[in-house]
This record gives sequence, C-alpha cells and structure tokens, in this order.
Amino acid sequence: MLLSRLAQKLGLKLIGDDLEITGVNTLDMAREDEISFLANPRYLPLLETTNAGAVIVDEEHADKLSRALISKNPYLDFVRTVQLFAKPQGSFVGQSPLAFIHEDARVHPTAVIYPHVYIGPGVKIGENTQIFPSCYVGEDSVIGDNCIIYPNVTIMARTIIGNNVIIHPGAVIGSDGFGFAQGGPGLEKFPQIGKVVIEDNVEIGANTTIDRAALGETRVGQGTKIDNLVQIGHNVKIGENSILVAQVGIAGSTTLGKNVILAGQVGVAGHLKIGDNCRVSAQSGVGKNLPPHTDVGGSPAMEHKTYLRTSVILPKLPELVKTIKKMQKEIEELKQAKSE
Amino acid sequence: MLLSRLAQKLGLKLIGDDLEITGVNTLDMAREDEISFLANPRYLPLLETTNAGAVIVDEEHADKLSRALISKNPYLDFVRTVQLFAKPQGSFVGQSPLAFIHEDARVHPTAVIYPHVYIGPGVKIGENTQIFPSCYVGEDSVIGDNCIIYPNVTIMARTIIGNNVIIHPGAVIGSDGFGFAQGGPGLEKFPQIGKVVIEDNVEIGANTTIDRAALGETRVGQGTKIDNLVQIGHNVKIGENSILVAQVGIAGSTTLGKNVILAGQVGVAGHLKIGDNCRVSAQSGVGKNLPPHTDVGGSPAMEHKTYLRTSVILPKLPELVKTIKKMQKEIEELKQAKSE
Amino acid sequence: MLLSRLAQKLGLKLIGDDLEITGVNTLDMAREDEISFLANPRYLPLLETTNAGAVIVDEEHADKLSRALISKNPYLDFVRTVQLFAKPQGSFVGQSPLAFIHEDARVHPTAVIYPHVYIGPGVKIGENTQIFPSCYVGEDSVIGDNCIIYPNVTIMARTIIGNNVIIHPGAVIGSDGFGFAQGGPGLEKFPQIGKVVIEDNVEIGANTTIDRAALGETRVGQGTKIDNLVQIGHNVKIGENSILVAQVGIAGSTTLGKNVILAGQVGVAGHLKIGDNCRVSAQSGVGKNLPPHTDVGGSPAMEHKTYLRTSVILPKLPELVKTIKKMQKEIEELKQAKSE
Repeated sequence: MLLSRLAQKLGLKLIGDDLEITGVNTLDMAREDEISFLANPRYLPLLETTNAGAVIVDEEHADKLSRALISKNPYLDFVRTVQLFAKPQGSFVGQSPLAFIHEDARVHPTAVIYPHVYIGPGVKIGENTQIFPSCYVGEDSVIGDNCIIYPNVTIMARTIIGNNVIIHPGAVIGSDGFGFAQGGPGLEKFPQIGKVVIEDNVEIGANTTIDRAALGETRVGQGTKIDNLVQIGHNVKIGENSILVAQVGIAGSTTLGKNVILAGQVGVAGHLKIGDNCRVSAQSGVGKNLPPHTDVGGSPAMEHKTYLRTSVILPKLPELVKTIKKMQKEIEELKQAKSE
Repeated sequence: MLLSRLAQKLGLKLIGDDLEITGVNTLDMAREDEISFLANPRYLPLLETTNAGAVIVDEEHADKLSRALISKNPYLDFVRTVQLFAKPQGSFVGQSPLAFIHEDARVHPTAVIYPHVYIGPGVKIGENTQIFPSCYVGEDSVIGDNCIIYPNVTIMARTIIGNNVIIHPGAVIGSDGFGFAQGGPGLEKFPQIGKVVIEDNVEIGANTTIDRAALGETRVGQGTKIDNLVQIGHNVKIGENSILVAQVGIAGSTTLGKNVILAGQVGVAGHLKIGDNCRVSAQSGVGKNLPPHTDVGGSPAMEHKTYLRTSVILPKLPELVKTIKKMQKEIEELKQAKSE
Repeated sequence: MLLSRLAQKLGLKLIGDDLEITGVNTLDMAREDEISFLANPRYLPLLETTNAGAVIVDEEHADKLSRALISKNPYLDFVRTVQLFAKPQGSFVGQSPLAFIHEDARVHPTAVIYPHVYIGPGVKIGENTQIFPSCYVGEDSVIGDNCIIYPNVTIMARTIIGNNVIIHPGAVIGSDGFGFAQGGPGLEKFPQIGKVVIEDNVEIGANTTIDRAALGETRVGQGTKIDNLVQIGHNVKIGENSILVAQVGIAGSTTLGKNVILAGQVGVAGHLKIGDNCRVSAQSGVGKNLPPHTDVGGSPAMEHKTYLRTSVILPKLPELVKTIKKMQKEIEELKQAKSE
C-alpha cells in the first residue's frame, strides 16, 4: 500500500516522499519497506538507527525523521495500520462434510464450518461466522455475525453470542456454575439452568472458562476483552469495555462496571459490586465492594497508594522489629533510671 | 408438577392451596407458576414483592406467605426441586458412526457416544454414560455408569472413573505429572507410569487438569467437587466430599482429608498432609501440614483469626512506621534530658 | 531385564546376585521382581522393610542391602531406569482417514495422525511425530521429529516446533496475544501477526497457553519444561532448561534466562528481564528486573531471605501493635514524670 494512501485512510499528515509499504514492524526489526511507530519514549533512541521506511510519530518527534505520519495517538494509528496489513488465520471455506451439523440447526450459507465441528439442534449461526475444528455448539445456542470461534472451543446449550465476537482456542462458555447444597448425605448439585450472554465485540482468551448462571444469566458486556485462563463464575455480570488480564478469577454473582481493569491473577470474591473505571493491580484479592474510579492493590486489596507504601515497608519489617526491640530496651532503661 | 406432589416428594408441609408449578426461579424473577426459596435473610424483603407462586421457607417466615413449602433447610430443598425440573444438556442418542471406537473397547449399549469421540483399545464404558464430542479416552481406561463427559475432555490411558461422575468441558485427566531429574546434560523426564482414580459422584470443572501419578496413583475421593481451572499434581490424594474452588493448585504427593474446603486461587505445596475439615481462604498459600479442623488464611498461610487481624493492620503499616519514628525521637529526647 | 544388564546400561556397580527385573516402584510398593531407589534420607527406614528386588542407592547406604546398584545420583539413575521400562501412551498407527490433512501439507510417512486431527495447508510434520485426536495444526506450522502432541491441542498458524517436543492435552500454542489500543470508540484490537517458536526438548503442560507475538516472536528455549495451566504472554522469551511450575503467568515481552525456576502460581509482570538461574518461590509476584542468580519470594517479590523473615513476622503483627501501644503509654508516662 502506498504511504500516501495509508495516510489518507488514517487521516494523518505525511511528511516526506511517498513509498510502497509492504508491512508493519517494530523500530528495531523494520525493513526499508515497512512502517513502524514510536509511542513509548523509552524507544526514542531507535529513531536514529531504525531502517523503517516510515514511522508513525507525534508532532514533537517528527523532525528526527525524513519520512513519517504525524499522529496524536501513534499507538492507536499503528494498530489501525496493522489491521490493514494483517492476514486472518485459517484457510477453510464452506461447511465441511466432516462436521456434524444437526438438521434442525440454522447455519447461514456464508458461515464457515470446519471439519469435526459439532452443531446441535436449534442452533443459529450468523453471516460470515467461522467455527474452527473440534468446536462444540450445544443445542439452542445463538452465534451472531462475523464471529471467529477458534479450535477446541466448547459452547454449551442456550448460550447467546453477539456479533464480531472472537473466542480463542480451548475456551469454555456455559459450563455449569459451581453450586452445591450441604445438609444431605453428600454435596447435592444445584443444576445450573441459567445461561451465558456474550455481547458484541467481546474477545475471550484461550482456555478461559465462563460458567452459565444457576438461574438467570451470566453476562459479558459489549467490547469487553478477556485474556487467557480467566475464570468467570455463574451469574457474574461484566460491563462494557472492561479488561480482564490472564488468570483472573471472579466468583459467582459479582457485578463489574464499565471500563474496569483487572490485572493478571486478580481474584474477586462473590456477590460484590465493582464500580465503573475501577482498576485492580496484579495478584490482588478483592473482598469488598468498590465504588467507581477506585484503584486498589494487595491481598486483601487496599487503596492503591496505601498498597504501594505498604509494599515498600514489608521487606523492612525485620529491621523494624529490631528497632522496636531496641526501643523497648531503652524505655526500660529510662524507667529504671527514673525509679532510682 | 402439582405443588402438593412436590411437597410429597420432598417430605415438606404445604401451606395454602395447590398449584401447577412449571419451573423454578429466584424471588425477584419468579413468575406466578414458578416456585422460589428464601435461605439468605438478606433477601427477606423480597417475600413482600415476589410474584412466585410458592416459596420454600423455614417455619419462621411462613406467615408472610399465602402459599409455601415449610423446610428446615430451604436451600437444600430448593436444590432438590431444581433437580426435578432441570433438563439435561445434549440431545444425541446412540453411538455415532463419526466416532472412533476401537474394536477392543467395551462400550455398554446404553452409553451415548457423540460424533468425533476417540475411544482406545481396552476401554470400558458403563451404562447410560455419555461421552460428548471431541473427547479422548485412552487405552485401558474404565468409566463407570451414569457418567457425563462433556466436550473436549481428555482422559489419558489407564484412568479409572467411578459412577455418576461429571467432567466438564476441556478438563484433562491423567496427563503426565511434572517430574524431571537434574544432573544429566539437561532435565531428564521421569516417565509418569502411574494412573488417576476418580471415585463415585465426583464433579470436575472445565479446563481443570489432574495429573497421573509418577508411580502408584493420584486419587479424588468420592463426592468431592472440583471447580474450573484447578491443577492437581501427581500422586495427590483427596478425601471424600471436599470442595476445591476455581484456580486452586495442589502440588505433587499432597494428601487432603475429607470435607476440606480450598477457596479460589489457593496454592498448596507438595508432600503435605491437610487434615479433615480444614478450610483455606481464597488466594492463601499453604506450606505446612494442617491438623484436622484447621482454618487458615494468607500467603504463607497462618491461623485464620490471626490472618484477619493481620489483614486489618497491613494497610496501617505506613501510619505505624510514622508512629515508631515519632517514638524514637521521643525516647531520644528523654535520654538527652536524663543525661543533662 | 536382567539387573546386570541394567547396571551395564546405566554404568553402575551391581552388589549382590543377578535378578530378572520386571518393573520399577517406590520402596514401600515394590515387589520382589521390581527395582526401587533411595534419594531422600526421609525414606531411609524403608530400606529395612522394602520387598524390592534391588535398590539404586549411593555408596553410603549400600551395606544395608543384599542387592543394589551403586549410584552417585540415585534419583537420576532411577529416572533413567523408568525410561527403560515405561510404555508410551497411545496405540494408533498410520494416518487416519478420519483426520483432515490438507493436500498442501507435508506429513512424514512415519508420522502418526490420529482420527479427528486437522492439519492445514503448508504444514510440515517430521519423522515419528504423533498427533493425537482432535488436535489442530494451523497453516504453515512446522513440527519437527519425534514430537508427541497429545489430544485436543491447538497449534495456531505459523508456529515453529523443534524436535522431541511433548505437548500435553488441551495446550494452546500461538493464540493471539492480548493487545488493544485505547483512544477510539472502544478498545481496538492489535492483530497479533508474530509467531511462536518452541525449541527442541521442550515439554508443555496440559491446558497451558502460549500466545503468539504481536510482531516478531514468542520463544521457549530448548530443554525448558512448562507445567499445566501456565500462561505465557506475547513476545516472551524463555531461555534454556528453565522450569515453570503450574499456574505461573508471564506477562508480555518479558525475557527469562537459562535455568530459571518459577514455582507454582508465580506472576511476572511485562517488559522485565529475569537473569539466568533465578528462582522465584510459589505465589510470588515479580515486578522488577532480576539479575542472574537471584532468589526472591513474596508479592511484591523481595530477596528470598528477607521474605522468609518477613513471613515469620506477619502473623506476629497483632502482637507487635500491642507492644507499640504499650510503649507509647510508657513513653507518655516518662514524659509526664519528667515534666512534673
């Protein structure tokens, strides 16, 4: 693609002469026919040495380059450039005779069904949606348009999935929630008869598990992005455009607002309300409701600034204990001196 | 089902006139032909507003309702009611010609084998057991009666599974334990030649992994319930009716007793003994043996009451350090005054 | 196998008369025709009671036995003995007509392709490699010789896998990294166009996920062993012979050196450098670069010795707070006495 054409598509100003761009890359790896970007000032020195044919930068750094696209958000514009050059995965077309498609399923003619897929009765699959090999779509589930369901994904019965949803390999949607009653001879299973709803533009990571509701629904709000190996318990509700990093776990019936960010390995207890725009730092454990715009850290989680200060003190505890013992001795000596 | 018939099945007393019940639901969502329950006093106000046709309650709250079933354990009786109304997942019958069933496998004629299942030689599958699509059952494994093996489950060779076991999608039973010897040119693999035994009435969550023993066996005791994304190392033994919540990890050769509860994201080190009825709170790390009936929390885990107190102090550490510095100064002044 | 033959193969000295050995086992379970080992002094008393036909021990303990192989590293030599007796999993031979193998894939004639496997165009699979049922190998991926890819594994497009690699069931290699840009109407996806490279002799655990690079590559160095349910983010580089225990998570663009050991449930933040021979204890959270040969523990991680001391102090914090309050009172009294 001509650089001038790319500038036009992105609405950016081109500095320097035109060039045929064949791909995208980092500053240190880019060749002379590739475009790169500078977003993190850490990489500023690479502007001097990069072989990139062009660089997407902000106005401030443009003078260091003979050929550049000027952007107010170079990372966002580079991402949009990558979108133009990226080739989607997979190569199958049509609906494989090696797939099992129940006669009572309605699969749009433009949908791609790979070999070894199982599609149960009452399932509806929308336009241009792709179902990769060894996926299971249980009875009466609905999958919208332009979805990509990668290999070995399991979608249990009556799950509702919107449009433009991406589900990565091995994810499980609609498995039973974890509910048992005590009081009988053993633990008695609460059959999980609710469902899961995944709204538009959601992305779900590899081997992530999202449980169906006991009664009612588990819901992932539109635009929310979920990383790998995340656990979402039954009846959890997640708002729009939230980000759940890898290995997060959310216990049953908890509600997350919009634009919430949970960093890696965070745990959130059940029956909580986490407000809009909350941010929880990695490995934290949230055991209480959080009002909107709260930043927390630690296990159990505390206000994030306090967490940072506490984290600095923890390795000094042994020293602190020595200090206290010394002080005790000094007080004892002072008391003794007084009584003499 | 008639409410009177339900009362009879559960052995409960019916208050009010009879009614045809068509389903179960929460107090706030139930319609007039559905039955609900009250177990958590938090939801008491909903008794005034619910549209539920009938409610399972304890004696104490029955007077607030015109139609109720009186129970000593409303949650347990509601769970049993849900069991009567729940419809199982899946719709396939028979043994699919799209499955691979080795000629030396013995599959009971009432067992259901979905398309794209692989069943190896020497495998035995019992009555009414269902194997969903894309499951693998390795050679010489035995699966008992009335089991449900959901899609994409892997059961490696020589695994023994009892009756009424439920395995959720993507779980892996009998993968190699993690054992390597140092001292050679690289890490040398200890081939894991032991097996896994899953006793009756066990439930295993989605994408959970249970490793086969190095030598001997890994065993999950009867009635134990395991949530999603749990890791069970080689040679672990788990007693009866224990509960392992999501993302728990248990390292090799550890033994858990009966009725143990490990909350979400707990880690237990290897070669430990965790006694009957122990409870470990979420995200804790257990590095020592626990005698029966011990409650612990924290990482590393401590007595649970101490953990709660410590958790209150942690966010106050910065304040505490200030206090200590102030005290140091005061002591210095007192010493100075004394020496003057 | 004759014990004398085994001694010869391992280069060990045989004490006592010869014997036909039929298997391997632990000291307490071994029968009279099985061989066992003593590596951990904890099990020394079992030498008196074991029924094992022979035991691999160091010189020091040989006198307690009538039949033994003398080794400087009994565990390593036992592991090599197990390797001689272990029977590999699986029983299929050839390339199943129930598999989908794209006509543009090059599968070596000695490779084993089980039923329900999907192999995309441009894929190359080496000698004696086995692909178990329901695996997916995306377009242009390369898998070397003597690899074992267990059931339900997903290998996305353009992944490069060396020789003698073992991938356990349900693992996902080459799923999209987790990258999104903010600033548009929602979160915009950074298409992950890099790849994953797995070097020779690597082992990857069940349901582990390794993301493809955004640009460039994610790489796992030769001989490295990864346990179950581990998350490896995009552009991570791991050196040779490292060990990642179950449920570890490594965020994007972090580099690990050689011989690094991350214990269970450890989290490592993104864009870090962890030097050769570093060791991180279980559940720790690493947020800073670590120079080679560093041992750390805790979340956030600190020097390991400090972590151990701090861990002893934590449960004593409530007592410490009482002590400080008492001291405050005493100081107050001393000050008052002075001013009187």
